[in-house]
Amino acid sequence: MNIFIVYCHPEPKSLNGALKDMAVMTLKENRHQIKISDLYGMKFKATLDRDDFLQMENPERLMPVTEQFNAAKTNTFSSDIKEEMKKIEWADLIIFQFPIWYETMPALLKAWFERILAHGFAHNMLEGKINEQGFLKGKKAMLSFTSGGDKESFYKEIEGGDGTNLLPPISKALRFTGLEMMEAFAVFNSMQLSEDDAKKCFDEYKMVLNNI
Amino acid sequence: MNIFIVYCHPEPKSLNGALKDMAVMTLKENRHQIKISDLYGMKFKATLDRDDFLQMENPERLMPVTEQFNAAKTNTFSSDIKEEMKKIEWADLIIFQFPIWYETMPALLKAWFERILAHGFAHNMLEGKINEQGFLKGKKAMLSFTSGGDKESFYKEIEGGDGTNLLPPISKALRFTGLEMMEAFAVFNSMQLSEDDAKKCFDEYKMVLNNI
Repeated sequence: MNIFIVYCHPEPKSLNGALKDMAVMTLKENRHQIKISDLYGMKFKATLDRDDFLQMENPERLMPVTEQFNAAKTNTFSSDIKEEMKKIEWADLIIFQFPIWYETMPALLKAWFERILAHGFAHNMLEGKINEQGFLKGKKAMLSFTSGGDKESFYKEIEGGDGTNLLPPISKALRFTGLEMMEAFAVFNSMQLSEDDAKKCFDEYKMVLNNI
Repeated sequence: MNIFIVYCHPEPKSLNGALKDMAVMTLKENRHQIKISDLYGMKFKATLDRDDFLQMENPERLMPVTEQFNAAKTNTFSSDIKEEMKKIEWADLIIFQFPIWYETMPALLKAWFERILAHGFAHNMLEGKINEQGFLKGKKAMLSFTSGGDKESFYKEIEGGDGTNLLPPISKALRFTGLEMMEAFAVFNSMQLSEDDAKKCFDEYKMVLNNI
């Protein structure tokens, strides 16, 4: 399977970094093909702005939705955006590895959503090509995240109780593109993990990865 | 009253820009004191990283929570962070003006949350100084946002139906610091506004602002 890991943490030695490294190793052992975007490491541009578009339909006034549709039609997204889009097209599964900061994903990963899962590329709401008709239909996505909070107090709203809808704003955004959400893998109380806890969580994640 | 407007949109001629401009004018007419952070205009740094800290407690491994606590204790946040913190200390009310992109605030505004509403400055979870005991207690916050979606399909979960809990992950994050949430001002269907609709929404916002 072609697996694209979008990893977002500023510290390679972090728990998130270790989980990403283990995922790469385990998935390669299982003969999957892997591509990675290390958003901090690659200095991914963290704001949607005029530089996203090689030529603008309306240079007088930046309207992000209009310009994304235009760039998708005319193939004029900036090269860093095109690179990410190619990885998505290649992938069967996208794994997002990130910490929860202030209830949701880090700003830098949110920027990836805004810039890469663009109108005209990931979906077309004007033509009803969203959700089950989204352009990323047939591909899957999985959230793998860490949270300093405990499971109970964590902001969540699980539909059907199967863990595919953890972090509803993020799941909803990904589903909008047609991606099928797999069950999320979450590490809670991430700042108070004992050595045993950590070992258990790596074992659990390895089991999840082996079943992909 | 001292009012701090945190404004996040890449286009000055946008609806968000116009709402911000009207807020400044109206609030000044009403003899409030105003400070503004135009996050795109000021090229606000969009990622939490090592450069946030003038000296690190543990340079071997960046742990954001640890370093924010340390920087708050030793007054070693980077100067751009300190400037924003000063505006918060000065303010009685913070107004956030932004568009909804993918279910929530733009990445750049999320970066402001992560970098400025820092551990040790806005709250101290280790000492239970959160929510009603958060360090920004006594100040208020208001969300003013635009959404291309309609009101009904918009992701929301209003407790008590009074509009202070629109966009729950954002409201929850602000409440965590002790800020009291005012009723949000929202413009829905922002991409299909007729001239009449737009006039009505500006009139409504002006009324809200006149009642501050």
